[in-house]
Amino acid sequence: MSQHVYCFGAGRNEGRADMRNLLGGKGANLAEMASIGLPVPPGFTITTEVCTEFYKNNRTYPDGLSAAVRDGLAHIEQAVGLRFGDRHSPLLVSVRSGARVSMPGMMDTVLNLGLNDATVQGLIEASGDARFAWDSYRRFIQMYGSVVLGVDHHRFEEIIESQKLDRAVVEDIELTAQDWAQIVDSYKEMVAAELGRPFPQDPNEQLWGAIGAVFGSWMNPRANKYRELHEIPASWGTAVNVQAMVFGNMGDDCATGVCFTRDPSTGENTFYGEYLVNAQGEDVVAGIRTPQPLSTARALPGETAMQTVMPEVYAELVRVRATLEAHYRDMQDIEFTVQQKKLYMLQTRTGKRTAAAALRIAVEMAKEGLIDKAEAVRRVNPSSLDQLLHPTLDPNASRTLVGKGLPASPGAACGTVVFSADEAELRAGHGEAVILVRIETSPEDIHGMHAAQGILTTRGGMTSHAAVVARGMGRPCVAGAGSIQVNYGAQTLSAGGHTVRAGETITLDGATGEVFLGSVPMIEPDLSDDFATLMHWADEIRRLRVRANAETPLDAETARRFGAEGIGLCRTEHMFFDPERILIMRQMIVARDEAGRRAALARLLPHQRADFTKLFRIMAGLPVTIRLLDPPLHEFLPHGDAEINEVAAELGEDPDLLRARLAELAEANPMLGHRGCRLGISYPEIYEMQARAIFEGAIAAAAEVGIAPVPEIMIPLVGMKRELKIIHALIDKVAEQVFAESTRIDYIVGTMIELPRAALTAEQIAEDGDFFSFGTNDLTQTVFGLSRDDAGKFLPRYIETGILERDPFVTLDLEGVGTLIRLAVEKGRATRPNLKCGICGEHGGDPASITFCEEAGLDYVSCSPYRVPVARLAAAQAALRQ
Amino acid sequence: MSQHVYCFGAGRNEGRADMRNLLGGKGANLAEMASIGLPVPPGFTITTEVCTEFYKNNRTYPDGLSAAVRDGLAHIEQAVGLRFGDRHSPLLVSVRSGARVSMPGMMDTVLNLGLNDATVQGLIEASGDARFAWDSYRRFIQMYGSVVLGVDHHRFEEIIESQKLDRAVVEDIELTAQDWAQIVDSYKEMVAAELGRPFPQDPNEQLWGAIGAVFGSWMNPRANKYRELHEIPASWGTAVNVQAMVFGNMGDDCATGVCFTRDPSTGENTFYGEYLVNAQGEDVVAGIRTPQPLSTARALPGETAMQTVMPEVYAELVRVRATLEAHYRDMQDIEFTVQQKKLYMLQTRTGKRTAAAALRIAVEMAKEGLIDKAEAVRRVNPSSLDQLLHPTLDPNASRTLVGKGLPASPGAACGTVVFSADEAELRAGHGEAVILVRIETSPEDIHGMHAAQGILTTRGGMTSHAAVVARGMGRPCVAGAGSIQVNYGAQTLSAGGHTVRAGETITLDGATGEVFLGSVPMIEPDLSDDFATLMHWADEIRRLRVRANAETPLDAETARRFGAEGIGLCRTEHMFFDPERILIMRQMIVARDEAGRRAALARLLPHQRADFTKLFRIMAGLPVTIRLLDPPLHEFLPHGDAEINEVAAELGEDPDLLRARLAELAEANPMLGHRGCRLGISYPEIYEMQARAIFEGAIAAAAEVGIAPVPEIMIPLVGMKRELKIIHALIDKVAEQVFAESTRIDYIVGTMIELPRAALTAEQIAEDGDFFSFGTNDLTQTVFGLSRDDAGKFLPRYIETGILERDPFVTLDLEGVGTLIRLAVEKGRATRPNLKCGICGEHGGDPASITFCEEAGLDYVSCSPYRVPVARLAAAQAALRQ
Repeated sequence: MSQHVYCFGAGRNEGRADMRNLLGGKGANLAEMASIGLPVPPGFTITTEVCTEFYKNNRTYPDGLSAAVRDGLAHIEQAVGLRFGDRHSPLLVSVRSGARVSMPGMMDTVLNLGLNDATVQGLIEASGDARFAWDSYRRFIQMYGSVVLGVDHHRFEEIIESQKLDRAVVEDIELTAQDWAQIVDSYKEMVAAELGRPFPQDPNEQLWGAIGAVFGSWMNPRANKYRELHEIPASWGTAVNVQAMVFGNMGDDCATGVCFTRDPSTGENTFYGEYLVNAQGEDVVAGIRTPQPLSTARALPGETAMQTVMPEVYAELVRVRATLEAHYRDMQDIEFTVQQKKLYMLQTRTGKRTAAAALRIAVEMAKEGLIDKAEAVRRVNPSSLDQLLHPTLDPNASRTLVGKGLPASPGAACGTVVFSADEAELRAGHGEAVILVRIETSPEDIHGMHAAQGILTTRGGMTSHAAVVARGMGRPCVAGAGSIQVNYGAQTLSAGGHTVRAGETITLDGATGEVFLGSVPMIEPDLSDDFATLMHWADEIRRLRVRANAETPLDAETARRFGAEGIGLCRTEHMFFDPERILIMRQMIVARDEAGRRAALARLLPHQRADFTKLFRIMAGLPVTIRLLDPPLHEFLPHGDAEINEVAAELGEDPDLLRARLAELAEANPMLGHRGCRLGISYPEIYEMQARAIFEGAIAAAAEVGIAPVPEIMIPLVGMKRELKIIHALIDKVAEQVFAESTRIDYIVGTMIELPRAALTAEQIAEDGDFFSFGTNDLTQTVFGLSRDDAGKFLPRYIETGILERDPFVTLDLEGVGTLIRLAVEKGRATRPNLKCGICGEHGGDPASITFCEEAGLDYVSCSPYRVPVARLAAAQAALRQ
Repeated sequence: MSQHVYCFGAGRNEGRADMRNLLGGKGANLAEMASIGLPVPPGFTITTEVCTEFYKNNRTYPDGLSAAVRDGLAHIEQAVGLRFGDRHSPLLVSVRSGARVSMPGMMDTVLNLGLNDATVQGLIEASGDARFAWDSYRRFIQMYGSVVLGVDHHRFEEIIESQKLDRAVVEDIELTAQDWAQIVDSYKEMVAAELGRPFPQDPNEQLWGAIGAVFGSWMNPRANKYRELHEIPASWGTAVNVQAMVFGNMGDDCATGVCFTRDPSTGENTFYGEYLVNAQGEDVVAGIRTPQPLSTARALPGETAMQTVMPEVYAELVRVRATLEAHYRDMQDIEFTVQQKKLYMLQTRTGKRTAAAALRIAVEMAKEGLIDKAEAVRRVNPSSLDQLLHPTLDPNASRTLVGKGLPASPGAACGTVVFSADEAELRAGHGEAVILVRIETSPEDIHGMHAAQGILTTRGGMTSHAAVVARGMGRPCVAGAGSIQVNYGAQTLSAGGHTVRAGETITLDGATGEVFLGSVPMIEPDLSDDFATLMHWADEIRRLRVRANAETPLDAETARRFGAEGIGLCRTEHMFFDPERILIMRQMIVARDEAGRRAALARLLPHQRADFTKLFRIMAGLPVTIRLLDPPLHEFLPHGDAEINEVAAELGEDPDLLRARLAELAEANPMLGHRGCRLGISYPEIYEMQARAIFEGAIAAAAEVGIAPVPEIMIPLVGMKRELKIIHALIDKVAEQVFAESTRIDYIVGTMIELPRAALTAEQIAEDGDFFSFGTNDLTQTVFGLSRDDAGKFLPRYIETGILERDPFVTLDLEGVGTLIRLAVEKGRATRPNLKCGICGEHGGDPASITFCEEAGLDYVSCSPYRVPVARLAAAQAALRQ
C-alpha cells in the first residue's frame, strides 16, 4: 500500500520538491523549504493519489487514510506543543489544496480550522487577545461555511453589516471582541438555519469536511473548465495540505505578504513584492487595505516599505530570497507570514511570468551561471512566444467588449469593418486598415483576408478555414464568435446590445478571442536581444529541422526572417484564387475535353511559374516542398445562384451548363472525394502543367541567384503505391522535356502521408517516394472518421467531458494518429533507410506535437511562418527531453 | 537465370500440370498429358515470366530467350523428323497463347506457321496433296495476316469471294489447288500493299512475329476488360505454346473435335462432345458445317456419331477420357485432332461448368470415391451458388435488351414499371408484381424496394444504397444503368430507342445487369439434394460461424432457412422508415429539448420492442447482434422544398423552423459527421430507448419461446475508449431498470470497429467491449479516405488501370484494411483473450474476404441472408486452405 500522508517541518520532512506529482506543488515545496532549513510551520500533505483513488472508488477514501491523518496531526501537535481540539492549548490548522500545477477554480484555503465554542477560549488564553480570537473564529466559520458547507458568502457579509449598523460603526476595525462573539453566534444560527444542522463543533469533523471539500472541488465546473483550457488531465488529482496556523494578524509585530524573486512582468532581477501589517492573507486579496512595498527602493512617496518597518525580518526575507533562487535556480513566488516578528514561509513556487519576463529571466540566469543554456531553453514556454511576435493590446487601455469568439490566430488588430473580401481589398488598396467580418470564410476570400488587418468570423472552430489561413498569414483572427450576429444585407454586426455598421471601427484580440468597440491602443512587438540569444541556443540544441508552410512571397519572406529552414508545404491551389487566375481555372474545369483543359492550363502556366520563381529566389539554398493540386475541383466553382450566373457570363457559358458541371462535380463527402492525386490520375494535364511550372521556375531562379534549388515535389492523398508510381513517372517525363529545352537540375518526388492506407502500406509507398510528409490534418480526420468542418457539433463537448483529452486537430493524437505515424516511419524506412520524414499539418507548430515528432524520429516539422520561432524552441526542448 | 522455355512430348517433358502459373494452363497440361503417355504432338512453352519481363522492360525480351527457342525448335524437329523452313520436309508449328486461366480476348492461335513459297512445295511433297498444301498456306497467311500483322480479315474474305466469282463456284470445297495458289498470291499482294512490305517468308521471322503477337495481345483492350471483370491480375502474364502441327483436314481419315468428360451443363456423368471429319479447329468455330456428336447414344436422327465413323479412334478417346478423369480427378475439357486415323491430344483443361453442374460433379465424384468430401467442397465456387438460389432467365427464351447496368443483386425479376416507392407498395398491395425504377434510392424508398420484385436504378455502383439494400433483401437489382433515362415527370424510362411507360412490363437479370422489354420466361431455383449434401460437408469443415445481416422478420426467416447461425448485424435505423415511425422520428429530431425528444422516443419504444421480440423469437437459441442508431439525424429529414412543406404540415411545425433545423444538422461530410455513438453521447435518451426496447423485447421473447436470448448490443463508430465506456454504462443502467421491473437476462455489449483509431487503440477499446464487429464498409472508407458515394467518379478507372486490383468495397483490401483488422484483433485479444471478433460489412459474403477472416482468426462473418450459403461454403474452403 502506498503512503497516503507525508509530513513536513520540525525535522520530519518526508517529501521533496521533486515529488510534486504526488504531493502537489505546494506540499512538495513546503517539505523542500523545511528540509533546506527555512522556517516552515509543521504540517502534512495528503497525496494526489488519494484524490485519484477517491474518484475511482465513487468518492470514498482509501483504507488507512484516517490513521495516517491522525499520525500527521500528532506530528504537528508534538512539533508546536498544542493539541487539536484542546480547550486550553488548541492546535489550529490551515487546510489548502495543492495540485501539481497551481489551479484557480478549486477550493483554496480554510484557515483557523480547529476553532469551536470551546477552543476559542483556549485561543483567548494562548494569545491573550479576545478580539483576535473571536475574529479568528468568525473568519473560520465564514470560510468554512462558504467553501465547505456551500453557504452563500453574502449571508455572512450581511451579518457583519447588520452588526455594524447596530453598533453604528463603519469599519471592521471598530468592532470589538464582544461584537465578533455576537457575530459568531449569528453566523452559527444562520448556518444551522440554512443547512438544517448546526455548524460542526468537532475539529475532526471540521478537518474531514475540509479535506472532502478540497477533493470535491477538483471536479467542480470551474476547475474542469480551467483544466480544459490549460490541458491539465483530470487524472492528476490534487493533494491536501494541513499545516499549523501562524498568524499575521495578531498585532502590529505581525504581517503577511507575497513576493517574487524577480520582476514577473519584465523579468528584471529585483526583489518584488508586497506586505500588510497585522493581516491575514485574505486581507491582501480583499483589497480593503493597500499592500505596501517590501523594499525602500520600490516605495513610492507615501508608501511604507517593510525594509523600514521590520528591518530584521526584511533582511531575513532577502536571505530567504537568495537561498530560494540558489536552491531552486528559478524565479520564485513566495508567501510568508510574520507572527510576532518571526518569519514563517508558507509557500514557494516557481513564479508565473509574462513571456517577456520568462525570456529575460532564462537568458540572464544562464548568463549568471545559475543555469546552463539548455536549462534556459527549457524555461521558456514555446507557445508564449506568440505574444512576443504580434502586437498586443495595451493592458492599461480602456475598452468596450462587444463579444467573444475563439482565439484563432494571435495578435491584436484594429480597423474599419467590411463584410466582403472584395471590399476589404478595395479599401485596403486605398490605405485603409480594415477588419474583414464574415459568417465564415472560403478560399475565395483569401485576397480579402490578406488585405485585412484582422479577421472575425461568427462560425467555425480553431481549425476552420479562417483560422488556418489567418495563422498562416500571421493575421490576427477571432473565429466562431457565435454571440455576434452578422447581417450582410444590412451591413451590420451586432452583439451585446451594440450594433456596428460597415465603416465603423473595431479592435480584435486574437490571443483572447475578444472583440472591442472602436480603437483600443496597442503595443507593438519588440524582439529583444534576449529573444535572438535564446533562439540561437535553441538552434544549437535541436535536431529537428523547422520549415514553414508558405505560398506567397510575403509569407516566404516572413518565414525566412523567423528562421525557417525551407518551405515544407506550398499549397499550389492557393495560387489559383486571384481573380484573373480563378477565371482561367474555371475555364479549365468546365472545358469539355482534354484539349480545352490544356488550353486553359497553358494560360495558368506563366502565373504559376512566376510564383515558383519568386519562392525559389526567396528560399535560395533551402529546400522547397511543393504540393500539387489537392482540393476537389468544385471548390473553385461558384455556388449561389447569382454567382453562378455571373461566373457563367464571365466564362461565356450557358449558366445551365455550368450548373450541370457543378452537379456532376458535387460530392456527398468532399473530404473523401475526387481530390489529391486522384485528380492527377484523372487529369494528368493539370499535374503536368504544375510540374513544368516548378521546373521552369526553379531553372529561372537558379539563373538569377546562381544556386539551383532542389524542388521537392509532393503528391497529395496517395493511398496506393501505383498512384505515386504513375504520377512520379509523369513528373519525370515533364522534367526530361523541360531539361531538354534548357538545363538539368536536381529534384525529388515524395508524398503526403495523410490516409491510413498510405501509412499502413508505407513500405510499398516508400518504393516510389523520396520523402514522406505527414499531412496530419487529413490523417486526423480519417483516423478519427471526423470531419473538421462538422466536428464543431460535438467535439467541444467531447473535450469538456474528457472523452478526448485534447482537440486532436490542435495537438496530435498520440495514441491513434501517432501510432500510425510511427508505424509508417518504421515501414517506410525499412524500404528506404534514408527516407526523409516530416509533418506539415497544423500540428507542425504545436509544441506537444513537436515533442512527438522528435520522439518518432522525424526529420523536420513545417508550420505557419509565425509559428516558426515556436517550433524552433519546441524542437530544442524536445531534443533535450530525448 | 530462370528457364525461359520448357519442352514437352517425345520423352522430353520438362513441365507438369502444377506448373500452370509458369507455363499457363495449356502448356502445363500438354506436358502433363505427354508425361502420362497420352499422344501429344511435341512442342515447347515460353513461360509467363517471359511475358512479365517483356512488359517490365518496355516490351523487350530477356537475354537467352532466342537461344532457348532455338533449342525448343530443335527438340520438335528431332522428334518429328522435319526441319523448320526445310523445303523438302518442312516442320510446321502452331503458336498459341496460354495464360494461367483460359482468357478470351487474347490472340488465340496461329496454325501452319513455317509455310512460305518454298516450304509449301515441301508440304505438297510430304502430303501428296497440293490442294491441302495451298489451302494450308492460305489459311496461314490469313490467320497470321489478321492476328499478327493486323490486316482486316474482310480483306482476305473478299479475295476468296472474288476468286469464287471468277471461277463461278459457291463453296470453298469447289476451289482447286490452283485456285488456292492464286489466292495465296493475291493474299501476299494485298498484305504487301496494306503494310508496305512483303508478307514475311522467313519462318523464324514468322515465329517471332507470332510470339510477339501473343505477348502483345495480353494487354489489348479486350483482354484487359476480361481480366478486370474476372479479377485476374495483369501481372500473371501469358505463356506461348509452340507445337508441331497435326492436321485434321488432310482427308476423310482425319478429324478434329472437342469434348467434356461430363455434361458441363447438368453435371451428368456422360461423355459429351462434338467432332468434324476432315477439318481444322477453326472450321468448327466458323459454323459452316454442323459438328456431329461423339457417341451414338447422343446422336439424334440424321447425325453421324464418331463412334460409328471411327470406332477405333473413338474407343481410344473413351480410354483417354477415363485416363484423364482418373489422373486429374476433375471434369476435363479436351481438344483433339485425328490425323490419318491417329489420335492427337491438343489440349486438356478443367472444364467450365454451370453452378448446378459444378455442384453435381463435386458431390458425385466424392461419392464415386474419386475425390474426398473436402475436395468436393473445394470444387464449387461459392459465388456461383447465387445462381442456384435465385430464379434465372430461361436461357432459351427470346428477349429484347433495353439497356444494361451493374449486376447489383442476383436473380431475375419481372413486373410492371413503377417510379415511386409509394406506388410500388400500393400496387404490390393489390397483388401486382412491380419493378421499382429510380434514378437512385434512399432510405425512404425501402418500403417500396421491399414491395417490388426487383429494383432498377440509373445511378450508383455496386455498393450504392439500392445495391446494398437489394442484396440484403434478396431482391434482384440492376444498378447504375447509365444508358437508361428515367423521366419521373413523364413517367417513362427510355433507352436504345425503346420507351417504357409506367405500368408496362420489364424483366431484370440481376446476375448480368441486363434489362429486357416485356416478360422473359424464368426458371425457378430448385435446390437439389446435392446442394444440401455439399452444405452439410461444408458445415463439418468450417470453423468460422456464419451470421446474417437482418432487420425484418422476413429477412431473419430467410437467413435461418439458409443456415445462418444468428444475426450479426441488425441495423435498427431501418426500423424507423415505416411511414408512421418516420413521423415520430422526425418529431424527435425537431424537438426543442430533451423532454420533447423523450416524448417522441416513448412512442417509438413499443414499435421497436415489438420488432426485437419478433427477431428474438425467430432467432431463438441463436445470438442476435443489434447495432444502435447509426446514421446522422438529417438522413431522416426530407430535403426537397415540397417535401419539407409536406413534412412540416404533418409535424405541425413551421416549414421555416424545419428548414432551420435541417440547416443546423447539415454536414459537409456526413460520413465523418455527427453519427454513430456520437449521437448516443449527444442524445443519450435515444440509446436509452433502444436499449430498453432490446431488453424488454428479449424478455418478452424469452417468455414466449422458453429460452432467453442473449442480446449482443453493438455501439457504432467508436473511436475513443471513453465513448464505449460511457454508453456501456448507460446500457447497464437501463438494463438494471428493466430487470428490476421484470426479470434478469444475460446480454453483452461490444462495438463496431469501423474507424482506424478504434483499430489502432483496440487494446483500450477492448477494456469495455465484449466483442468487436469489424464494420468493413466504413473502415474501407476511412482507411482509403474514399467516400463510397463519390468513388464512382474515379474508382472504376482505378480498377481498369490496375491501380487497385479489386474494388475494395466488394473484396476486402488485405494490405490496408486487412493489416488494420489483424492489428486490432491482436491488440484487442491482448487485453481480452476471449474477445469475440467478426465482420459485418458487405465483405462478410465475399469469398475472398472470408478467406482473410479465417486467416485473421475471426470468429464469425455476417452477411445478407441470400449470401449465407455462399459464406458457409467459402468459410469451409478457407478452413481447408489454412
